[in-house]
This record gives sequence, structure tokens and C-alpha cells, in this order.
Amino acid sequence: MNNPSLVSADTTAGELEAILSAAQEAASALRDSTGSERASWLRAVGTAIDEERAELLDLAAAESHLARAALDAEVNRTVFQLEHLAQAAESGELLRVLAEPADADYAVAARPSLVQAMTPLGPVLVFTASNFPFAFSVAGNDFASALAAGCPVVVKANPGHLGLSARTAEVVSGALAKAGAPEGTFAHIQGVEPGVAALRDPRIKACGFTGSVAGGRALFDIAASRPDPIPFYGELGSLNPVFVTPAAATARAEEIAAGFAASITFRGGQLCTKPGVLIAPEGSGILDSAGAAVAEIEPVTLLTDRITDAFAEGTKSLSGLPGARVVAGGAGTSPTLVAVPAATVLADGGSSLEECFGPAAVVIEYRDPAEIGAIARVLGPSLTATIHGEPADAVAESLVDRLGSLAGRVIWNGWPTGVSVTRALHHGGPYPATTSPTYGSIGAGSAQRWLRPVTYQNWPVELLPREVRAHVDPSAV
Amino acid sequence: MNNPSLVSADTTAGELEAILSAAQEAASALRDSTGSERASWLRAVGTAIDEERAELLDLAAAESHLARAALDAEVNRTVFQLEHLAQAAESGELLRVLAEPADADYAVAARPSLVQAMTPLGPVLVFTASNFPFAFSVAGNDFASALAAGCPVVVKANPGHLGLSARTAEVVSGALAKAGAPEGTFAHIQGVEPGVAALRDPRIKACGFTGSVAGGRALFDIAASRPDPIPFYGELGSLNPVFVTPAAATARAEEIAAGFAASITFRGGQLCTKPGVLIAPEGSGILDSAGAAVAEIEPVTLLTDRITDAFAEGTKSLSGLPGARVVAGGAGTSPTLVAVPAATVLADGGSSLEECFGPAAVVIEYRDPAEIGAIARVLGPSLTATIHGEPADAVAESLVDRLGSLAGRVIWNGWPTGVSVTRALHHGGPYPATTSPTYGSIGAGSAQRWLRPVTYQNWPVELLPREVRAHVDPSAV
Repeated sequence: MNNPSLVSADTTAGELEAILSAAQEAASALRDSTGSERASWLRAVGTAIDEERAELLDLAAAESHLARAALDAEVNRTVFQLEHLAQAAESGELLRVLAEPADADYAVAARPSLVQAMTPLGPVLVFTASNFPFAFSVAGNDFASALAAGCPVVVKANPGHLGLSARTAEVVSGALAKAGAPEGTFAHIQGVEPGVAALRDPRIKACGFTGSVAGGRALFDIAASRPDPIPFYGELGSLNPVFVTPAAATARAEEIAAGFAASITFRGGQLCTKPGVLIAPEGSGILDSAGAAVAEIEPVTLLTDRITDAFAEGTKSLSGLPGARVVAGGAGTSPTLVAVPAATVLADGGSSLEECFGPAAVVIEYRDPAEIGAIARVLGPSLTATIHGEPADAVAESLVDRLGSLAGRVIWNGWPTGVSVTRALHHGGPYPATTSPTYGSIGAGSAQRWLRPVTYQNWPVELLPREVRAHVDPSAV
Repeated sequence: MNNPSLVSADTTAGELEAILSAAQEAASALRDSTGSERASWLRAVGTAIDEERAELLDLAAAESHLARAALDAEVNRTVFQLEHLAQAAESGELLRVLAEPADADYAVAARPSLVQAMTPLGPVLVFTASNFPFAFSVAGNDFASALAAGCPVVVKANPGHLGLSARTAEVVSGALAKAGAPEGTFAHIQGVEPGVAALRDPRIKACGFTGSVAGGRALFDIAASRPDPIPFYGELGSLNPVFVTPAAATARAEEIAAGFAASITFRGGQLCTKPGVLIAPEGSGILDSAGAAVAEIEPVTLLTDRITDAFAEGTKSLSGLPGARVVAGGAGTSPTLVAVPAATVLADGGSSLEECFGPAAVVIEYRDPAEIGAIARVLGPSLTATIHGEPADAVAESLVDRLGSLAGRVIWNGWPTGVSVTRALHHGGPYPATTSPTYGSIGAGSAQRWLRPVTYQNWPVELLPREVRAHVDPSAV
């Protein structure tokens, strides 16, 4: 399905050596760049992608099987992400400058003059996602955030869209060169072995990943076992539970059922934020209505053969749980809804509810509100957790603390799919949602993954990095 | 040397189970506490330590062999750290609240109302340091920062001062109980096996460590290999190079030599910020003057037998390097200065210069300024890097970029020892200085190690955590 004219063989050892050597060289030049310069490079990439939109969409649609309209919207988002990170770089906010003047009378001992500012970690390796061939791929958020932070980026192509990756890489490289970014700022590699070799290389200083728990954990283990372990920011798996209180079910069962069916089938259910389980009161009608809505949705071709096979296995496994009943779908890549008794989930400590990537979800019906709390206690961490509740809803209130301890984003009367690219949205969570709970992988805050603080003590202002100097008031240090 | 009435046997499996279970219970209560409440608990601990100062100093002096005056100053610092973190908790700054109102016209898709705020990770395990029996031990910065963040703390006693640890733990427990902190907020364990068992336990959500590279790496590997890897914040080893330019050597050789000798022998050289290597121009007189000053400093009893043995091995290893010459000391625990030829360090890629914990350091004399850059390029990462230079000093300028990429704190015309407890001082660096380059282990910023962001989407203000609510303007969401 890949475009043979664009997909060359895997990156050779010699090519990788040249790429890593150039990235290391570029790291020094990028440390000395300003946020405004990096913003101009990011915008040049956005403009170039927009200009090549038609050709890129053709490639993406052919390789990913995603709907062209969805991909077109994704290009808009990708271009906006580049602009969003450009603004963050330009504003100086990523530097987090903190200046404290010398103080002879400070606390227990005299304090020297101190200026703290973030500095880029160095070359970043990015393993791209299959499900967002633009927004989380070659020119996606990991690329944009690392470059905004001042790090050279080596992107490993996703095998699900090699032709698009190669072409996007050409567009990115061309735009960066034309905009005057240092050579080595960006490179594109292909193949599992070159990806792993790059991850083990001491010139790579951090890694981003979006994908499966199995793949992400294997790479995390490599990063952690290096002689010098490096930060590994992986977004792995997430069940994204949705809890419906009795009051909410009474007030708007049909609306909730329709919203759920739409959310689990959006983009073929191939989203990290797909709500994989809905917990609703028995007899509310939500299960039947959602089942009817899901049954009407056409099967789609999933991203890759591997994902298609895993989906068939996943739905089979869910259908085989004790007491489970297939309410809709259940064959091939049909959107699938499975009802699972609360007792089954409570009995196995929630382990039966592994994420099933694709258009499938589980509904658990509870008999009394005490059960909803018990279910919340056995579910593992997720990117998101959602409550459908009503004002002054005691059942909703009883869930708040537990859900806040499980997820990185909690949602009231909404759906976790449809993620806003902005500063206040955190896209991350405790393992396995992400390998590091501290930073998310969307929005300006995600650039902090590629930075570390440096303090300049009694440092002459004229020797501060060019960019830091611009954001320090000389009279304050 | 330990006080037998205070040092009981290692924590049993049953005791550990009760401790972890109580910590998990307390995590929920602490998530619901306010910063002001936590500040009052931290201050209560500081007051109690101050009240028991005389007895604690007796124990510390007997077990650590550190000078009583140094320990007394350390208690002041410890009490101030507790106050510093109390202020950070109280002010709400640790929450990093970020509120963005709903915006139907936002960028590529409507944005919901979003409030982001930090939330505690849960129970934190702390492996304490031998070299600061107060400031980095039971009631030290890891304890203070984790409690400020809202995390229960389980502290593993350092074998170098078990009696002091046990007594400090009694003081801390008593103060917390009296101040109304939830049961399970703090516990103290003893023994390697219980420490490792706690680190593997799923109820522990993060770990802090200060100590050797070997010990820290072993624990890091355990944390990273858990089914659910947790953040491990270890401060391991650091060489802290000091570079003297020709201009600085000409201007003030005697002053630099005296400062160096004092810095490497302060507290018996048992500091993570001890400058382990000084790079100075040949023939400047700094080597001889520093050697004479070091030779006049009396040997001290080091912290533990293990450290004493390692010091003897370390100085022997340095003295045995090709072309090395012992300039002062060299026997037993005598303060020791070894001159090592630049060629030796350049030939082995800097690997010969491992940290030697205790009152020992290396001087490398360079012949021409080009050599100083070559040496900077082979040295590995450190907590700090220092330049002694003069105004408009081209040699100093040539080092700036390299040192900023190697260290978490760069110092101009000063010494790395003597660390200010404040917001702008970053105490961390690339591995092996710290296992995570992102956060330091001193000051208010160190509390961020124990927090992660949560975004509340379209969330009713009245269901926000109590503390977050107090810092959000309801009209802004």
C-alpha cells in the first residue's frame, strides 16, 4: 500500500551514523538559537505542509485508510500545532526564566545572584504513531515541541504510512533548509533496527513515542537500561472509562447513548482517547440504545493488518469474558459493543478490561450506586476519566477523588475524544497511560519534556545564552 | 556507634505492610488537604526539631563524625527548608493552576473550559543520604518537598546514622500527630531488604534517593523494571569541574588556590558539590599553593567505614594514573591533591576522573588555552561546572556553551559548595548527576517531582479539589 517511489529501504548503519553526527552538531547551534528563529522554522514547516496538502492527503488516505475529510481536518490541526508551538517558542515562556538577586541577608546563608532558565536536552528521537499520520507523525506534536524547545529531531517513520512519512520528511527538510535552520536539525529514519540503534546511541538525549503498551514498554526498557538512561516519554494505552450516574441516566439516556456510540467509532475507534468502557445503571436503556446506534455504523478498514488482527483478537477476548454478551457487531472490523457483568470485572480486579484498539467498547451495567465506586477502584490508570452526572449528584461526587487519582484529564458531561491543542489540556496520566506522569504530549507544555533547568550563578549577563539574556532584566541580577 | 536504645532491628515484612497500607490511606486524605494545612505540619516538624536540637546534635556528631558546628548550621538549614517548602505549599504556587475558558471559536475546533492543576502522585519512598544527617535525611528536603506536594512519605534510614534517624523519626511522627496530619503521613523504615521491597510495592508511586552511583543505579533499575515503572529521582555522582582561565590565574592565583583548598575539604570533602577537578594553566602557581594549603588541613574521620575504604581506594587509583603526582596527602584520610597530566585525561576520554568522595581532588595543568576546551569536551555531566575568569575573557567565553550542556548549575568566580535553598537554584544535571535531568532536589521546585498535572474539563467548580478551587477565579472558567 506504500508508494514504492517514495519508500526506500531501511536506514543503513552508515546513514544513521551521519544523521546522529549531524544532529549532535546541530544541537550546539540550536542551543544558541532564539525562540523567534525556531518559531520561523516551525511556521515554514506548517506553510510547506499546507502547500503540499493535496498530495499528502492522497498518500495518507491510501496508506492509513482514514477518511479524507478526517485527514484534512488533521492537517489543519497539525499546521495549528506548529503555530501553537511557534508562539510558545517565540514568547519565551518555555524558558521559565527565574531570576533572584544576590542577598547577603538571605535565610541561613548569603545567596548569590541566580538566574535559572531551561536549556534543550539535545537530539530527540521520535517514534511516530500510526493513528495520526499527520498530527502525531513526522511533522506532528513531538517534532514541533522538540524543535520549539531547541532540540534537533530524528523521526522514525511509522510502518503504517511509510510513503507519507518519506514525503512529509522531504517537505519538512526542504522547508527547514529554506528557512535557514541549521543542517542536522531534522532527519527521518526507517526500520525497527535503526530505530533501536538510535535509541541506544549516546548522542540521543531523549525519546518520544506514541503507540502500543508492548512496543512502548520494550523501547522504554531500552532507554532505561542505557549506561546513561534518558527520559522516555511514551504514550501507551488507555481505557478511558466513562461513568454515568443514575441521575444522568434518568435525565438523558438517549443523548448519552448516542454520544458514546459516536465517540467509540470516530476515526474507526483508533484514538488513544476512545472511551473503552461505559459504566451505566442497569435498566436505563443506555446499553440498548448505544447497541442500536453502534450496529448502524459501517465497518471501516483499520490502519494496518496488525491492528486488524489485534482488533479481532480483542473483541473475541471481550466477548468470551464470563457472562459477556455481544450487543452489536462482533465480527470482522464491525463496530462492536459488549456488555460485561460488573461481577466479572470486580472478580478479576479489572484486568479483563484491556484496551481494544479500534471501534469496540464495553458496557458494564451496575445495579446499585455502591457498585459504581467498586468498579472505579479496580480500574487502572488512563489518559482520561469521564463522569456523566447532574447538579448536586452524590454519586458523581463520590467518584471525583478516585478518578482524579487515575487519570490525567477528567471530563464532566462530555467525551474524551476530540482533544484541544492548548496550554491547559494535559494529555498524559499514570502508567500505562504515559511512561512519565509529569508531562503530556499535546500543547505548549509538552515542549518541557525536551528541556532541563540550568542555573547561572553570579554569571555575567553578557555570557548568558542569547535567548535567556533577552528575557532577564539586568537590574534584577 | 549507633545508640542501641534507639536502633531496633530491620523493619519486618508485617511492619512494612502496615506502613504501606497506612500510607495509601493517607494519600487520599492528603490529596484533599490544603497547602495551608500542609504548611502547618511542616512548620510543626521544624519547631520540634529545633526543640530537640541538643539531643539530635549529640546523636549526629557521634554517628556521622561531622563537626558539631557544621551540624548545628545544618539543623538551621533543615528548619529553614521546612519553612521554605511550607511557604511554597501555602502560596499555592506548587499547584501551577492554569485556567482557560471555553471558546467556541478557538483555533481548529471549539475548546471546552479547562482548568489544569498539579495533583500529588501518592506515597513517596525516600532513601536518605549519609552526608547530610539532617538536611538530606529523615526530615530533609525530600521529606519536606514530598509532604509540601501532598504525598505521604516513607523514609528509609541511612545506615550511617541509624540512631539519629530513629530519634528524628520519633520527633517527626510526634510533631505531625500533634499538628493533626493524617495517620500514615510519615513512616520510617530500616534495612536494605525492606527498602527494596517498598520500592517494588505498587502502593509506592515515586522514589527519591541521594547517594552513590552504584547504589542509586541499582535502585533506579528496580523502579524502572516494575510492572508500572515509577519516577525515580536519584542524585548520584558529580565531578564538578572548575576551569581557571589564564587571565584569572594571572589576576588572583593565591585567592583561587585558597578557595579551592577550602572547598574540597569543607565537611571532610563529603559533599555532592565538592569540586573534584581544577583545570588551571601550567606555571600559574595555583597547584603548589593549593597543595600547600591542603597539606595543612587535618585529616578527619569520614562518615562511615565504607566511605573510608572507598576514599583510600579512590586516592590510590588517582595517584596511579599515568604521570600522576601526589601534591598533598595521599595516605589514610588525609586531604589529598593529585596532579594529573592533561594528556592522561584526554587519552582515556575523561573516564579516569571518577568522583572520589571525601577530601580529595585532581589538578590538571594545561599548557595552552586550546587544551582547556579539549578537556571540557571529554568530561562527563555534573551537578555544577565553574569558571574562574576575568571580564572580556575569550577563554572563558569559549567554555560557556560546553559547560551549560554538561551541568545543572554554572558558576562564575565562585565555588560549587555552599548551596542556597531557594527557587532559582537548580540542583541536578544530566546522568549521572541525577537520574532525571528535569527537576532538582533542593528548594521549592523540587516539590514538582512528586506532582503530576490533571486537567478538569467542563468540570463544576464545586467539584474541583478543595485546594484548586481556592486558586481558580470562577468567572474565568
